[in-house]
Amino acid sequence: MNKIEEKLLKIRGLDKKAMDNAKNFLDNLCKPLGSLGTLEDIVIQLCGIREEMVYNINKKTIVIMCSDNGIVEEGVSSCPKEVTATVTENFIKGTTGVCALSKFFNSDLTVVDIGVDKDFLTKDIINKKIMYGTRNMIKGPAMSRQEAIKAIECGIEIVEELVGKGYDLIGTGEMGIGNTTTSATVIAALTDLDSELIVGRGSGLTEEALEKKKDIVKKVLEINKPNKDDAIDVISKVGGLDIAGLCGVFLGGAIYRVPIVVDGLISSAAALCAFKLCNESKDFMIPSHLSKEPGADYVMKELGLNPMLNLGMRLGEGTGCTIAFSIIESAIYTANNMESFENSGVIKDDYENIWNEE
Amino acid sequence: MNKIEEKLLKIRGLDKKAMDNAKNFLDNLCKPLGSLGTLEDIVIQLCGIREEMVYNINKKTIVIMCSDNGIVEEGVSSCPKEVTATVTENFIKGTTGVCALSKFFNSDLTVVDIGVDKDFLTKDIINKKIMYGTRNMIKGPAMSRQEAIKAIECGIEIVEELVGKGYDLIGTGEMGIGNTTTSATVIAALTDLDSELIVGRGSGLTEEALEKKKDIVKKVLEINKPNKDDAIDVISKVGGLDIAGLCGVFLGGAIYRVPIVVDGLISSAAALCAFKLCNESKDFMIPSHLSKEPGADYVMKELGLNPMLNLGMRLGEGTGCTIAFSIIESAIYTANNMESFENSGVIKDDYENIWNEE
Repeated sequence: MNKIEEKLLKIRGLDKKAMDNAKNFLDNLCKPLGSLGTLEDIVIQLCGIREEMVYNINKKTIVIMCSDNGIVEEGVSSCPKEVTATVTENFIKGTTGVCALSKFFNSDLTVVDIGVDKDFLTKDIINKKIMYGTRNMIKGPAMSRQEAIKAIECGIEIVEELVGKGYDLIGTGEMGIGNTTTSATVIAALTDLDSELIVGRGSGLTEEALEKKKDIVKKVLEINKPNKDDAIDVISKVGGLDIAGLCGVFLGGAIYRVPIVVDGLISSAAALCAFKLCNESKDFMIPSHLSKEPGADYVMKELGLNPMLNLGMRLGEGTGCTIAFSIIESAIYTANNMESFENSGVIKDDYENIWNEE
Repeated sequence: MNKIEEKLLKIRGLDKKAMDNAKNFLDNLCKPLGSLGTLEDIVIQLCGIREEMVYNINKKTIVIMCSDNGIVEEGVSSCPKEVTATVTENFIKGTTGVCALSKFFNSDLTVVDIGVDKDFLTKDIINKKIMYGTRNMIKGPAMSRQEAIKAIECGIEIVEELVGKGYDLIGTGEMGIGNTTTSATVIAALTDLDSELIVGRGSGLTEEALEKKKDIVKKVLEINKPNKDDAIDVISKVGGLDIAGLCGVFLGGAIYRVPIVVDGLISSAAALCAFKLCNESKDFMIPSHLSKEPGADYVMKELGLNPMLNLGMRLGEGTGCTIAFSIIESAIYTANNMESFENSGVIKDDYENIWNEE
């Protein structure tokens, strides 16, 4: 039994009693039953996670896992690999999309170098480097099983540290040239679906480029033969360090009982890996935005998650988490600041009927 | 030519030049082209509305039109009509769902009595009462043409007053027992679709109750024969004062050049009326949440609007506007606080290729 398996054994599911109490509380607020929809579901889920009534969110951050991918050698991107390092540094400068959005929504960023092909001088980038990028998976496994396990453990540790610092809501972001290819491959490997159905067009991908991407994914799967019943095997052979690290973040959510927001294709691939390693981890996930990538859509359906945002965003970096954070906070605030039927002048049975009859 | 028609003649569409400038500005920010999706669309639309670059949102409010509906006599709701007045007062007490959400998201509420069957003592409820609720439209027109026009004018005036006070983002909410029936009837009347397809189940409507609602809508349409090419005729015969007032708010948005957020079934019915009276009004609308009501969904498609929230909310009151407000504000903030390519260390052509190739 490895260290991850040991930790997973300690996971308890959601606290049903706290959830029942939350539901009763919500049903006594002056509104048609369940009429705040997902906002109510979020409150109930958070109470199940914290094992008590939830009155506020204390601190929130987005864990941005940054790493390079060997598959970039195959020309899946005509962009130089160095952009991974440049944008990683830009997170610290505060200049990217997720930086602006997280300032607006009052969220912190936790930038992690889990495998960028550059040494950073600043301490603001957390150094958890496993290696200087993965190997080219068209020639063999992207990394060893041991390296994948270390990367997953890293994600778990990050959550442990953040919870220790008082963070009680965590998002998932990433930066890594080549990581939509690795993510699509991981999702294809973990499912029975043809990779043709999983590999997406991104935005503006030409027909020719899409075919090339599909060919590469198919070849990578043929060469590496990942075992679909072993998510660690899949991550190590055809994944990336960012996916492994985020998988660890999702597992850490379940271990340390903190909600983790799923955001975008790479995060979805990682969420699926976490789910395969530990089904209960799903109960600690909150989905942010609808992705047009078929792979992300598949994962949402597989996990039974219903994204709350439909914004056509495809910037990555965990940008959607910021908006999801504010919706989650508004849900908690609303539950704690509405009047109950008792004090409202409206009779509960009557009000139910408004909705039911009309 | 009535006063409304006179005002509509003055409407100018969106400012294409300001929109082009905004798009160029956004395309020079360090991110894949268009990758902030709807956030970018919103910035461009707001620049088109304001006819210049937009740097911030100053003040925002939700106009909540409150009114009673004579059709309630037919038992479309088993809830006493008096709940309309009670909840209208609760808006002022600050105890309802939209009150909590608007406090969280720092929005004001503008509560308007446009036709509640009660006289209110507080000045906090703006008295624009046209009448003490509409007549029972199963026996004839809900109101006269003149009353409908007065209610629409009232909505336009409210926007004029709010813009004068510095509000530059306005949402639409309502309270009125019976108003999902009037809204479904208005939408059915304005479309070629069978009312069977428009009348929705709300949440938890039994099969029997749904059939009754459909029968009432059908009878109301047969008795009143509203002219689908004349939205004022439709509103007066089979609408409500809240729908008329909100229709005026949407028209006021186009006249006074301020964005109006569409939220929920009643607001959607009003938006469709405004669109029929003046197509350009659509360019000043921003949709908030996806509704499960077929009528609202139809209106979104007819107007080409793509709601940004998928939260299963059905509380009404304009609750979804609050979250939409914060997304709109975050879009403006992000556009103004990201780095351009020039200063980012990333070459624009390379970065475009990341997205296109991957």
